Amino acid sequence: MPELRKDPVLGRWIIISKERGKRPTDFIVEPTVARGGFCPLCPGNEKTTPSEVLRYGAPPQAANSPGWNLRVVPNKYPALIIEGNLDKAGEGLYDKMNGIGAHEVIIETPNHEESFTCLPLDRMAQVFFAFRDRLIDLAHDPRFRYVMVFKNFGRAAGASLEHSHSQLVALPILPRMIVSELEGSRAYYSYKERCIFCDIINQEHRDKTRIVCENERFIVITPFAPRSPFEMWILPTQHASSYTSTDDRSFEMLTSVFSEALRRLDACIPNAPYNFVLHTAPLRSEPLEHFHWHFEIVPKLTQIAGFEWGSGFYINPTPPEDAARYLREAALK
Amino acid sequence: MPELRKDPVLGRWIIISKERGKRPTDFIVEPTVARGGFCPLCPGNEKTTPSEVLRYGAPPQAANSPGWNLRVVPNKYPALIIEGNLDKAGEGLYDKMNGIGAHEVIIETPNHEESFTCLPLDRMAQVFFAFRDRLIDLAHDPRFRYVMVFKNFGRAAGASLEHSHSQLVALPILPRMIVSELEGSRAYYSYKERCIFCDIINQEHRDKTRIVCENERFIVITPFAPRSPFEMWILPTQHASSYTSTDDRSFEMLTSVFSEALRRLDACIPNAPYNFVLHTAPLRSEPLEHFHWHFEIVPKLTQIAGFEWGSGFYINPTPPEDAARYLREAALK
Repeated sequence: MPELRKDPVLGRWIIISKERGKRPTDFIVEPTVARGGFCPLCPGNEKTTPSEVLRYGAPPQAANSPGWNLRVVPNKYPALIIEGNLDKAGEGLYDKMNGIGAHEVIIETPNHEESFTCLPLDRMAQVFFAFRDRLIDLAHDPRFRYVMVFKNFGRAAGASLEHSHSQLVALPILPRMIVSELEGSRAYYSYKERCIFCDIINQEHRDKTRIVCENERFIVITPFAPRSPFEMWILPTQHASSYTSTDDRSFEMLTSVFSEALRRLDACIPNAPYNFVLHTAPLRSEPLEHFHWHFEIVPKLTQIAGFEWGSGFYINPTPPEDAARYLREAALK
Repeated sequence: MPELRKDPVLGRWIIISKERGKRPTDFIVEPTVARGGFCPLCPGNEKTTPSEVLRYGAPPQAANSPGWNLRVVPNKYPALIIEGNLDKAGEGLYDKMNGIGAHEVIIETPNHEESFTCLPLDRMAQVFFAFRDRLIDLAHDPRFRYVMVFKNFGRAAGASLEHSHSQLVALPILPRMIVSELEGSRAYYSYKERCIFCDIINQEHRDKTRIVCENERFIVITPFAPRSPFEMWILPTQHASSYTSTDDRSFEMLTSVFSEALRRLDACIPNAPYNFVLHTAPLRSEPLEHFHWHFEIVPKLTQIAGFEWGSGFYINPTPPEDAARYLREAALK
């Protein structure tokens, strides 16, 4: 059973994943993205993953067999496990709980060679549908309070499999990042009675220097205080706190700007490693006036980030106004 | 002039270092630690660095000439600059200020081939003296509120020069990490009227499972909720909030456990890349009952850290009790 542990000073929760328990010698060789050889995410190998929890493709099809366009399966080496109770316990001044949760892999394409950035729009849209479907399904489990949806692309960003995929982790706690965002945006709202993200969108429309691209429902900006060069945020221009409230037409519009943003990044920095993370309201939350769902795309371009991420102190060598200009002016294929 | 910018939601400050301004093509090749060739930190090349601000060595010696054991020089490519006023300004809802600060390099040895871990104890102690001397000197500048002292070892941890060195950055703001620690420890103190770090030390003495090594004045533990495999904290066993209050005898004891901790890490995982960061009270702070200065050593062993550090959500595959046992049992040379 994995264990969730809380740092007593900072209140930061950590997953101790004993199942993945690593001895010193496991760290000596740098992990690399496996290339060639057997791929558990390819069609025909469905039986080598845990049984699928979601599948998109033309019916009728047998589960866990080829023919799918997109598949969601539990992670074979999960950081958290789905069976068990949420036992909480103290250990002197320390707090811990059982590592209950879900850890799933969204296999974005049956084609091993195809990257997320290059997916046709209708198929990229299926990935965004899958995020919504899994969020709605996992919200039925009262043990879970948040689902973190994310993608690691490239070895430097933590990808361990080449076949295009994203991941989600359902958590029994709110992660620190989302707690801070909820608190920060609530403080602004209680002062101004406006959503800070809506205000950011308005200001970006006036300033015009940090807009990468937009359409009638979404905007892509380089944020004013980015952690990373070429960091981008994708926000719906109409206020909404939960990703799951998005309608089909909006998913089309989201896909259009998301694809363009990634293709612009790729045109500037070919194969740039990146992480993206969905920031949305907690599961089963009522609509929040102060919080605004969005995606954050954080390229992993600087090695020095190790120290910076550890200390919460970032040095960014590319002003976001410059990054936005490079991204806007990039020639798309 | 670099610029400090505040994320309006999270309150996180970022340094936009325009002087280091990077275009997209600058990111295409991964940075590597320069090996061989010209080293600006070696004796004989003193004129290629900015003029030294501190120097240890047998007198009499001319400044910026060979003969030193340790030298502190301003960073040639500083993230923040020392000249100017701390002009603060708003930009709509955004906040920014001039990037005033100091960025210095502590050259830990004249010998290019010598690693920090392998320094003889009397020479490693000089590094800890230098940290104190610079902290005391920089505290005289009222523009600065905090000095972050840190070391990046190995390319994966952000080191860009091979010659052994550490760094410090004097900041006009308190970094988020230290704000959170001050707040968390103050909250505990107001509830218990005890320092949480003192309580941690007491509990670690009782539990005995997370102690790596100790002597009469310092203890090295693997923390209960570590971000990274083999993370270690080094704390003085007597309560003290500021590093600068350390006396010479204590520096000897600190050096002894610090050296042992790094040699144990190296015995487990040869050449493990790591960052260490000094956590101490803000400059000119009165002694704080609730805060306890310490070092945190965070090995950089997992690539997946990119996503985790970005989201505040960490998965650690090595329980700290296992890490402490491996470290204790490692055979030292």
